[in-house]
Amino acid sequence: MTAYDELMAFQHDTEALAQISGRLGWDQETVMPRGAVAQRGLEMAAIEAVLHARRSDPRVGDWLERATPADAAAAAQLREIRRGYDRARKVPGELAKRLAQVTSEAQGKWAAARAAGDVAAFLPVLDEVVRLKREEGQALAAGTGDVYDAMLEDYEPGTTGAQIAAIFDAMRPRLVALRAAIRDRPAPKDLMGRFDEAAQLRLSHDLARTFGYDLYRGRIDKAVHPFSSGSGADVRITTRTAEDDPFNCLYSTIHEVGHAAYEQGIDAGYALTPLGRGVSMGVHESQSRIYENQIGRGRAFTGWLFGRMREAFGDFGIDDAEAFHAAVNKVRDGFIRTEADEVQYNLHIMLRFDLERALMSGDLQVGDLETAWNDRFAADFGYAVDRPANGCLQDVHWSVGLFGYFPTYALGNVYAGCLWEAMNGAVPDLGEGLARGDVSAATGWLRENLQRHGGLYPPREVIGRASGRAPDEAPLLAYLEAKFGEIYGL
Amino acid sequence: MTAYDELMAFQHDTEALAQISGRLGWDQETVMPRGAVAQRGLEMAAIEAVLHARRSDPRVGDWLERATPADAAAAAQLREIRRGYDRARKVPGELAKRLAQVTSEAQGKWAAARAAGDVAAFLPVLDEVVRLKREEGQALAAGTGDVYDAMLEDYEPGTTGAQIAAIFDAMRPRLVALRAAIRDRPAPKDLMGRFDEAAQLRLSHDLARTFGYDLYRGRIDKAVHPFSSGSGADVRITTRTAEDDPFNCLYSTIHEVGHAAYEQGIDAGYALTPLGRGVSMGVHESQSRIYENQIGRGRAFTGWLFGRMREAFGDFGIDDAEAFHAAVNKVRDGFIRTEADEVQYNLHIMLRFDLERALMSGDLQVGDLETAWNDRFAADFGYAVDRPANGCLQDVHWSVGLFGYFPTYALGNVYAGCLWEAMNGAVPDLGEGLARGDVSAATGWLRENLQRHGGLYPPREVIGRASGRAPDEAPLLAYLEAKFGEIYGL
Repeated sequence: MTAYDELMAFQHDTEALAQISGRLGWDQETVMPRGAVAQRGLEMAAIEAVLHARRSDPRVGDWLERATPADAAAAAQLREIRRGYDRARKVPGELAKRLAQVTSEAQGKWAAARAAGDVAAFLPVLDEVVRLKREEGQALAAGTGDVYDAMLEDYEPGTTGAQIAAIFDAMRPRLVALRAAIRDRPAPKDLMGRFDEAAQLRLSHDLARTFGYDLYRGRIDKAVHPFSSGSGADVRITTRTAEDDPFNCLYSTIHEVGHAAYEQGIDAGYALTPLGRGVSMGVHESQSRIYENQIGRGRAFTGWLFGRMREAFGDFGIDDAEAFHAAVNKVRDGFIRTEADEVQYNLHIMLRFDLERALMSGDLQVGDLETAWNDRFAADFGYAVDRPANGCLQDVHWSVGLFGYFPTYALGNVYAGCLWEAMNGAVPDLGEGLARGDVSAATGWLRENLQRHGGLYPPREVIGRASGRAPDEAPLLAYLEAKFGEIYGL
Repeated sequence: MTAYDELMAFQHDTEALAQISGRLGWDQETVMPRGAVAQRGLEMAAIEAVLHARRSDPRVGDWLERATPADAAAAAQLREIRRGYDRARKVPGELAKRLAQVTSEAQGKWAAARAAGDVAAFLPVLDEVVRLKREEGQALAAGTGDVYDAMLEDYEPGTTGAQIAAIFDAMRPRLVALRAAIRDRPAPKDLMGRFDEAAQLRLSHDLARTFGYDLYRGRIDKAVHPFSSGSGADVRITTRTAEDDPFNCLYSTIHEVGHAAYEQGIDAGYALTPLGRGVSMGVHESQSRIYENQIGRGRAFTGWLFGRMREAFGDFGIDDAEAFHAAVNKVRDGFIRTEADEVQYNLHIMLRFDLERALMSGDLQVGDLETAWNDRFAADFGYAVDRPANGCLQDVHWSVGLFGYFPTYALGNVYAGCLWEAMNGAVPDLGEGLARGDVSAATGWLRENLQRHGGLYPPREVIGRASGRAPDEAPLLAYLEAKFGEIYGL
């Protein structure tokens, strides 16, 4: 065996163990007995320690030095393995283990605190998470500088906090202006009535299949926070329901199907290798957001969905497809990021981006988080947070240590804007299929031009290759202004 | 840290990883997407390789040499770790990995072959399992002799095939005579009608709680073959339903609750250590069988259950508790081990015990298995197997490599007989509580005298301490002859 073959055989098992670790996360969020939280923390710590030891194994460094890639894919494998190796070597094993344990506990405490509306009950463990993450960031940044930039490398390799801030600065005034203009216009009608949960879940399964989710290699469960989990032949999603808001369930499902379809669309030859996963969180989010928004909330598709909704739920107080399209895309006051409309969504992200950068730099203390959140929210959104579950306790991310993750949601929107522009140029009759509920031309284009590559190209490169342009915020802003200008008659 | 402390810290993570591996097995049998079978095989192989490497780690040998136990519990920990270490050192890592992979695949093929009634579709992979298990047995037996005895060490340490054969030889004529006498008597009445699945599952949840299953640290799901899985704070069981036979579901649940209650009853201080698990499969089965049979199918408890069944299902053609007790314990012709009555159950085990010993010794070839099974079944039971799902494809065990496991079911019955005799001596008013559906005196006695010890005492010792006698088949046979003599008026 060559050094490359030996390295890949070793890495293959590491990837399999990482899949197992991910599946434990799925289990914890869906089926785990409540009383197992503490034990699960110890189990997660044990497998994370194994993964850390494998990723930082000196033999990996030796193989990396001696391996010569035969082609571009092999070179990309080595690039990704080296990234994981360098990262793992920088973080002490004990710290990685402690982080896995504390974040597992913190997740349970977050869920309890959120249910009880008790911020104070969550702060001590969050403080410990922040302390450990900062310690990890300092280890990762050693010699290169910014702690937060080092964290971004885990989610969006090659992107800095300053780059993101520049994009956000360009977006913010245009979004605020669009939002202000919408506020002066009459509000679209809302759906009326109660929507049977079982019927929501049935329609949500139908939509998942419509968007190409392969249930032979996946499954759908309920969870507090919808998510997608796993790669290769076992990619699971979760959704949630609200009896008065079927869009919560349906569009959460379509969103997670976007993530899952990306994983399921990767070339099977990359399975259980570093290329067999989505290349970054931002690119991942570009898929979930384009499925959910540009496709799923577009005029053509909502025309078809309107008929399906009538079949599933009967009369819900809206009589034509135009009013339905406006209802789907209604811009409304609200506290919850995952329920936010396309116009305000990025404002949610910017808030979290600034707060978590400040937590990491030490400019913000955990004890001041709730006040900082509420002040910033009031300033950006124009109304006050009413309770912690609608404020700083709404997201799972910080409890599980995902600092540096939030901005990738907005980057995903930016990437989705670029891909949507390119797809419309490449597939001129796109709307005709979507109006019949046939999304295969759109999902096929995405699979062919982006999804199948997995980790082959770095994030900005794969978006650039698929969209034919260096990614920036212009197409997204143009799309949003056109779409909402039309709905609201601006 | 002392050598003992270092060893226990290392072992703690090994136990946590073993819990994870077990939970993957639960996942595969309950919620895993069908298309994930092949990938799951690779994942299982990866974590088994990790476990094997840890169990055979030379540092463990070094720690074992230097460790001095402070008390009896510490000595027992060392005994169990040494057993695992010696075993792991004897089995090559590649063989362990290959076995994990092949048995994972074989399990899927067994399920498909069973559904299709296609023995031939299962034989090639079974042949591979047998070949690998024999290879493993030869490695384990090196220097000590019998391949099958070496396998028994995994499930019932300290017991040989010859010892088991001696017990079985003593039981067989008495059971055959009892069965023949019953056949000459009129058959008890059967339950009539269809039994709603949801109502079965509700009652089965109620019974699980009645028998002390802690659902805060567990859960109940449906699976093809009922099982219990996990230790400590995450002990899950599965059950199954048949619309015309509610006893299948209810007594499967009570049986698995017996296993789960044993795990849940172990002293919390032993969690994630070798003592934090049931000490052997035979002792485990003694708990499931005493819950299911001596308690659950006893006259006192069935009197109470009769009322609950009437509440849950209305009229099912049986009007009094005596007839209900006879129906619960009816001895009838049947093919399925897990549905067999107490009289015939051990005949099922003896058949499998002899066949698997012959497969391991090479006296029986996989290609001749179906004929051998069917011939032996006809000779022992008096009627012919009608289809493979009722014959050699009925059990999951061989597909997952569990050779040496079957006889522990009958040993469990023998142990349960000893425990039941002792419990009745120690708790004279036992029947009064059971007649009210209160099993707490029985389960409390078992927890106090047996379950809480976990792996502290070897199998025969823990049964001996609890029952006050060296375990043998006499109490079980006396119990069976008295119980069925009364029901059938012998």
